Amino acid sequence: MMGGNDQQAYDRGTSLFSPDGRIYQVEYAREAVSRGAPSLGVRTADGIVFVAMSRATSTLMESESIEKLHKLDDHLGTASAGHVADARQLIDLARRQSQGNRLRYGEPVGVETLTKFVTDHIQENTQRGGTRPYGAALLIGGIENGEPRLFAADPSGTPNEWKATVIGGGRQDIQGVLEEEWEEGLSLAEGIELGVRALAAHEEEFVPGDLAVATVTEAEGYRTVPESEVSEAFEAAGLAGDEDDDETSADDDGTDETDADGDGE
Amino acid sequence: MMGGNDQQAYDRGTSLFSPDGRIYQVEYAREAVSRGAPSLGVRTADGIVFVAMSRATSTLMESESIEKLHKLDDHLGTASAGHVADARQLIDLARRQSQGNRLRYGEPVGVETLTKFVTDHIQENTQRGGTRPYGAALLIGGIENGEPRLFAADPSGTPNEWKATVIGGGRQDIQGVLEEEWEEGLSLAEGIELGVRALAAHEEEFVPGDLAVATVTEAEGYRTVPESEVSEAFEAAGLAGDEDDDETSADDDGTDETDADGDGE
Amino acid sequence: MMGGNDQQAYDRGTSLFSPDGRIYQVEYAREAVSRGAPSLGVRTADGIVFVAMSRATSTLMESESIEKLHKLDDHLGTASAGHVADARQLIDLARRQSQGNRLRYGEPVGVETLTKFVTDHIQENTQRGGTRPYGAALLIGGIENGEPRLFAADPSGTPNEWKATVIGGGRQDIQGVLEEEWEEGLSLAEGIELGVRALAAHEEEFVPGDLAVATVTEAEGYRTVPESEVSEAFEAAGLAGDEDDDETSADDDGTDETDADGDGE
Amino acid sequence: MMGGNDQQAYDRGTSLFSPDGRIYQVEYAREAVSRGAPSLGVRTADGIVFVAMSRATSTLMESESIEKLHKLDDHLGTASAGHVADARQLIDLARRQSQGNRLRYGEPVGVETLTKFVTDHIQENTQRGGTRPYGAALLIGGIENGEPRLFAADPSGTPNEWKATVIGGGRQDIQGVLEEEWEEGLSLAEGIELGVRALAAHEEEFVPGDLAVATVTEAEGYRTVPESEVSEAFEAAGLAGDEDDDETSADDDGTDETDADGDGE
Amino acid sequence: MMGGNDQQAYDRGTSLFSPDGRIYQVEYAREAVSRGAPSLGVRTADGIVFVAMSRATSTLMESESIEKLHKLDDHLGTASAGHVADARQLIDLARRQSQGNRLRYGEPVGVETLTKFVTDHIQENTQRGGTRPYGAALLIGGIENGEPRLFAADPSGTPNEWKATVIGGGRQDIQGVLEEEWEEGLSLAEGIELGVRALAAHEEEFVPGDLAVATVTEAEGYRTVPESEVSEAFEAAGLAGDEDDDETSADDDGTDETDADGDGE
Amino acid sequence: MMGGNDQQAYDRGTSLFSPDGRIYQVEYAREAVSRGAPSLGVRTADGIVFVAMSRATSTLMESESIEKLHKLDDHLGTASAGHVADARQLIDLARRQSQGNRLRYGEPVGVETLTKFVTDHIQENTQRGGTRPYGAALLIGGIENGEPRLFAADPSGTPNEWKATVIGGGRQDIQGVLEEEWEEGLSLAEGIELGVRALAAHEEEFVPGDLAVATVTEAEGYRTVPESEVSEAFEAAGLAGDEDDDETSADDDGTDETDADGDGE
Amino acid sequence: MMGGNDQQAYDRGTSLFSPDGRIYQVEYAREAVSRGAPSLGVRTADGIVFVAMSRATSTLMESESIEKLHKLDDHLGTASAGHVADARQLIDLARRQSQGNRLRYGEPVGVETLTKFVTDHIQENTQRGGTRPYGAALLIGGIENGEPRLFAADPSGTPNEWKATVIGGGRQDIQGVLEEEWEEGLSLAEGIELGVRALAAHEEEFVPGDLAVATVTEAEGYRTVPESEVSEAFEAAGLAGDEDDDETSADDDGTDETDADGDGE
Repeated sequence: MMGGNDQQAYDRGTSLFSPDGRIYQVEYAREAVSRGAPSLGVRTADGIVFVAMSRATSTLMESESIEKLHKLDDHLGTASAGHVADARQLIDLARRQSQGNRLRYGEPVGVETLTKFVTDHIQENTQRGGTRPYGAALLIGGIENGEPRLFAADPSGTPNEWKATVIGGGRQDIQGVLEEEWEEGLSLAEGIELGVRALAAHEEEFVPGDLAVATVTEAEGYRTVPESEVSEAFEAAGLAGDEDDDETSADDDGTDETDADGDGE
Repeated sequence: MMGGNDQQAYDRGTSLFSPDGRIYQVEYAREAVSRGAPSLGVRTADGIVFVAMSRATSTLMESESIEKLHKLDDHLGTASAGHVADARQLIDLARRQSQGNRLRYGEPVGVETLTKFVTDHIQENTQRGGTRPYGAALLIGGIENGEPRLFAADPSGTPNEWKATVIGGGRQDIQGVLEEEWEEGLSLAEGIELGVRALAAHEEEFVPGDLAVATVTEAEGYRTVPESEVSEAFEAAGLAGDEDDDETSADDDGTDETDADGDGE
Repeated sequence: MMGGNDQQAYDRGTSLFSPDGRIYQVEYAREAVSRGAPSLGVRTADGIVFVAMSRATSTLMESESIEKLHKLDDHLGTASAGHVADARQLIDLARRQSQGNRLRYGEPVGVETLTKFVTDHIQENTQRGGTRPYGAALLIGGIENGEPRLFAADPSGTPNEWKATVIGGGRQDIQGVLEEEWEEGLSLAEGIELGVRALAAHEEEFVPGDLAVATVTEAEGYRTVPESEVSEAFEAAGLAGDEDDDETSADDDGTDETDADGDGE
Repeated sequence: MMGGNDQQAYDRGTSLFSPDGRIYQVEYAREAVSRGAPSLGVRTADGIVFVAMSRATSTLMESESIEKLHKLDDHLGTASAGHVADARQLIDLARRQSQGNRLRYGEPVGVETLTKFVTDHIQENTQRGGTRPYGAALLIGGIENGEPRLFAADPSGTPNEWKATVIGGGRQDIQGVLEEEWEEGLSLAEGIELGVRALAAHEEEFVPGDLAVATVTEAEGYRTVPESEVSEAFEAAGLAGDEDDDETSADDDGTDETDADGDGE
Repeated sequence: MMGGNDQQAYDRGTSLFSPDGRIYQVEYAREAVSRGAPSLGVRTADGIVFVAMSRATSTLMESESIEKLHKLDDHLGTASAGHVADARQLIDLARRQSQGNRLRYGEPVGVETLTKFVTDHIQENTQRGGTRPYGAALLIGGIENGEPRLFAADPSGTPNEWKATVIGGGRQDIQGVLEEEWEEGLSLAEGIELGVRALAAHEEEFVPGDLAVATVTEAEGYRTVPESEVSEAFEAAGLAGDEDDDETSADDDGTDETDADGDGE
Repeated sequence: MMGGNDQQAYDRGTSLFSPDGRIYQVEYAREAVSRGAPSLGVRTADGIVFVAMSRATSTLMESESIEKLHKLDDHLGTASAGHVADARQLIDLARRQSQGNRLRYGEPVGVETLTKFVTDHIQENTQRGGTRPYGAALLIGGIENGEPRLFAADPSGTPNEWKATVIGGGRQDIQGVLEEEWEEGLSLAEGIELGVRALAAHEEEFVPGDLAVATVTEAEGYRTVPESEVSEAFEAAGLAGDEDDDETSADDDGTDETDADGDGE
Repeated sequence: MMGGNDQQAYDRGTSLFSPDGRIYQVEYAREAVSRGAPSLGVRTADGIVFVAMSRATSTLMESESIEKLHKLDDHLGTASAGHVADARQLIDLARRQSQGNRLRYGEPVGVETLTKFVTDHIQENTQRGGTRPYGAALLIGGIENGEPRLFAADPSGTPNEWKATVIGGGRQDIQGVLEEEWEEGLSLAEGIELGVRALAAHEEEFVPGDLAVATVTEAEGYRTVPESEVSEAFEAAGLAGDEDDDETSADDDGTDETDADGDGE
């Protein structure tokens, strides 16, 4: 996609444009995101569904500690992809802003307002010197005035609203499934099923335990979906959720930061 | 336009002139603007018309979230082009300044005054080290003392007043149509029609839903024009506003930041 | 004028001397000034005359928005050349200083005092790191103790007093006319005529509407000369002020920042 | 694992991504960790076990001064690997935070909370310029609400929870043993034995005195295990804990910072 | 004098010594001084004489605005050479210090004290990073306790006391005349005559109007010598002060900053 | 030990890791230490012994001014090696901390506590940009709770406790003697003798006057051992302490900073 | 002494060690000192003698303004060598510290205390970035508790006490004479004579007027020795103090900063 000698002069500094108007460090930060495992969000009639590939690189790692999905407020959640430590900074920022809004105004922050607060912070790191961009992307979704809304924040600091989208590795395949199958009026269960099926388009073999799923609805707020329900979605999606095959398979997209142990395995 | 080895020494630092007196980083930032989708403004007898190409790269993206047009105050609006996250910073700056003016003086800020406040900020980022220029341009227009006025702010921080102009991709073609067809005393509807026709000079196939249109008039202030009215302008302009062909066409100018998802599609 | 490999090492940092004692960034900033359209000042018995080439690059641009001439105080004005956004910063600085002087001391600032305040600021940007020089020059002129005085401020921060001088493109030709034709005791009208004729030495075809003219006199203070009077000067100067030929002609000196739109037209 | 010319441009600055989305300085910091002697943690039914290779490079060095294991609070400990001086900074940070938490809230800080406080600090040093990443990794473990928990913090600032894991040199071999042999419900003694046996997978000859062992249990809090008990674990693990062979053997992994004396012995 | 590849590594940073113990930026700043027109000072029995070449590059430039000689206090004056804008900064510094001294202590500052205040400031700019040295030299002279004293301050920040000396271009020739002809007990008029004759050693054709002359004496304090008296000195010195030949001759030393207009004429 | 092109990219910045996880500036700082004369410490049953090679490079230099040994508090001393001026900074830091501790708490600071205070400061200079590491190492020793303790602080900021160790040049030979001959329960006199003999392993000819010796004991606190007693130790160690041969012999290890006079003798 | 490509990478930054543990900028600063004229100090039974080569480069320069010797306090003086402007900064620092000490404590600062205050400041400039080392060395001498003491401070910030030593050019020859001829119990006059003779070892032809001589004694404090007494020492030393030969001879060591006028004569 990029190559040759011409770019070498421009890709080393955050604060520089290349002659064709690109900021390479931002594009490389996007590359860092696409090296990570995918996380997706689906807007349904009942609320937002988050599904994240969250498979541990070792059987001894507690997979819930991989933490791709986070509650931000009662009716607000987020899914991340890319450089794990960078994502944590952005999630902390979003959470502090949510809490601050509640303290100051006694009500939850809006989904769009919160997303733009985060993307403004991301943008600053792409313009000022002395820092690199964030190598992480976020989906921020929740219920605002009774309506489910879903936003994505990328490493350039651009916010966009989506019906359904994916961040991280395998984006092309997974977004393709979402575009083909998403429709207005999906139920929450159908949204989970769609999310699971879309991830399967990218990676053939995985089990319910490899996924983290959460929903945000008016009725229940942010809710972590238990593995039993994920298994049901697996079956409904026609996938072989064979839990016996619990080996840690080699990941073609293995540059995910969850492999951040220095062995390069 | 630019090339050769001579320029390599000067284009890496914001704060440097080249031997021929150019600031390459500013020129590259303009290149970033011309990579984006076009936005135009037309001054009519009744007020200002903004028309922006605002087509989503995926059917699942909410096209209104692309946000090329923004209300700044009751009688003041803006259209942007270029790096989306950069433009958002400038729009926020303009909006805060508009609100501050209203709070301090109880009246709206002037169109020219506001534009120059923004361009002074843009200029600073072209002179001090430690930061890159803004990769975005703005049109700022509105009613001032009963008269419609339209300004453009470019990445060098130069403000200019226009009867009608365009920022972003396809500038040469679109400005050509505006120069040929604009005349004093256009009605607001004629202004919208001219804007739509001018954009068509650059890109042959698009539908009313691909456009964002807004007007600023004495009577109605800032007003987002609904898609139904945009369709009427399409017909009046003699364009085939065939909504059935609702596929996301490949964009020759596809480096627009609305494609800022890392796939490089 | 400059060339070869030897200079490459020294021209990239504001704060460095070359082995032959030059500061290349300052010389390149002068080059930026000479790329702009010319502005000139003439000291006459009655006051100061400013004449600036102020031709829009598009018929849709409001030519008065190009703004080469500015009132600084009742009896004080300025003309600029070079990088438009840079010049605006210097003009704002001069204007704030003029206003501040009036507030503090109840009287206008002197022409020389104000010029040196501005040049001191310009000089600082040529010595400290982290910033580039200003790519603009100013003429500052007015009435001080009943006497007309005219100063020029260049990108090195050197102030000089002149009977008549020009900044910006075509300096050699235009200054030649001024040196040949200027004489002590010119009337204001003769000064305008001389200014128009001098600009014609550099650029053959232009019309009264392409010029901005202003005067500063004891009697009338700063006054923008209307186009009708400019046309009279055209005729007096023996120039064909044929307004019908109102096309935007290609400018050999076309690197003027008024062409700062990224198309490089 | 890494090589060639392409990487040279990106590996010199903390704040830069490479075109493939990697931050080389973080990867090199991981390499610094893997050059050090290994430290491991095992979660058992009764509490956390830490075992660290802590062999002095000279018979005159007090081996306890090598200090791989530290008490952080009554029920909280840490094990480190990599650059010793860097690890000390992180351990101090963790200890001050633990003490501060106790002073402010009258109760111990949670294991996960403390780990994330430390990893946030580590992450900052990978994003801001003017500093290098920490060349050290930590295991943080203890009893939280009656449950033993064990976390690892790596040089990227990623926190992960583990049943058992190792940081530092020989990670691949040692983690292999842990994955094969660890099981839910181990007793504390079994945990120590497993730790000793796992280290033996990497390095064939060592004696009880070369190890530092500590445990954190509900009943006894943080406890340094005396050499006599370590010897028992040696025997139970079927290893020849022959203390007579007390020479300082050459260490294949000899780049451990405990050899940080400049002789390169 | 300097050359070759070896120096290239050391001449780009203010804060660096070359292997042979030189600071090239300081030497280049001296080169900037020697590119300017010469200014000289002569200590006589009656007081200090300053003579400066102050010829305008255009007949329209007010030659007094070139300003090589300045009054600092009643009995204290200065002459400058080199980069005009830099010299102005130093002169302002000296003047503020003189005025401050008078305000605080009610008496004039000493010549030596003032010179060392200025040179300390100059030295700082040769040692700290982020700034370049001053490209200007000063002569500071006056009456202190009834005795005339004359000091020079060079770009390294070294102060020296002189009986007579010159700064700027043509130093070698002019200093030669001073060394041959200066003697203890010169009258003020003889001092002026010596100064004029010394300048003539460097540049053959010039007229009284090309010179600025000032004296500092116990009786009259700082006094600008009128052109009529300069003409008398011309005659006394046996020079053809032919005012009719009032053309602006090409200056071999033409890199003087008074030619600082970018045309390189 | 190090070499080749690969390292060149990484060894110029304090804040960077090399691909193999090393920080070259720290390693080079260790090299600076090993260029200095050796200083050693021996823990005996009665207290700590410091012995330093402290030979002047000229017969006119006062050898006591070389100052390798310093009292820090009543029962606390230090020995240094390497870059003399750097060592002085660390010793001052240690002394101020010791004094501060006494003032605040009314009791001496602990040996380990003080060492770690110093090494934390050293470590900071290896991680932050804008500074180089300290090119010096320290031994810190004294009586703490009645027990003699001896620590070393190296340029990486790693603290280690020792029974006996040496810093500076000839480390390999001298540490070899210490390891062979040191045993638990040495008397103070035996410790001095061991120290003298160990230094002799590195450098064959030296006289008592070339050594600085100090002890720290419970009974006498910090005590500088007079040359007469050093001579006795010489004899006891079987060395020819022939004072007549008082010439300043050429030092093979002559890069010691005590030769810091620029002649390179 | 130094050479080859290897050093090029390390000699450009103050804050960097070379692989062999050297700090090149400090060594180059020493080179700057050795380019200057020599200054020496001799400790005698009666006090300290300073002798400095202080020859003007022009007959018109006031040689006393070269200022190599300075009084710091009643019984404290200093001699400098190297970069004149740098030396002035250090001398000012020493003088302010001396005066401050007197004000605070009512007694003179000690010679050793003052020297170390100055060297600590020098050392900081060798470790922090953003500044170069001082290119000057000082001798500081005086009477402390009735005893004469003499210290040297070099560009690395190392303080050493001396019986007699020299700084600046020709160090090797001059120090040789001092080492051969200095003996305990010299009278003040013998010390002056020794100083004069030692300088003669380096430079064959010079006259009493080329020297600056000062003494510090208990009885007379700091005293500038008049030229008549210097002439006597000349005769006593068997030198031809032929004042008639008062030409300014070419100085082989001519890079002394007293030739700092840009002509390179």
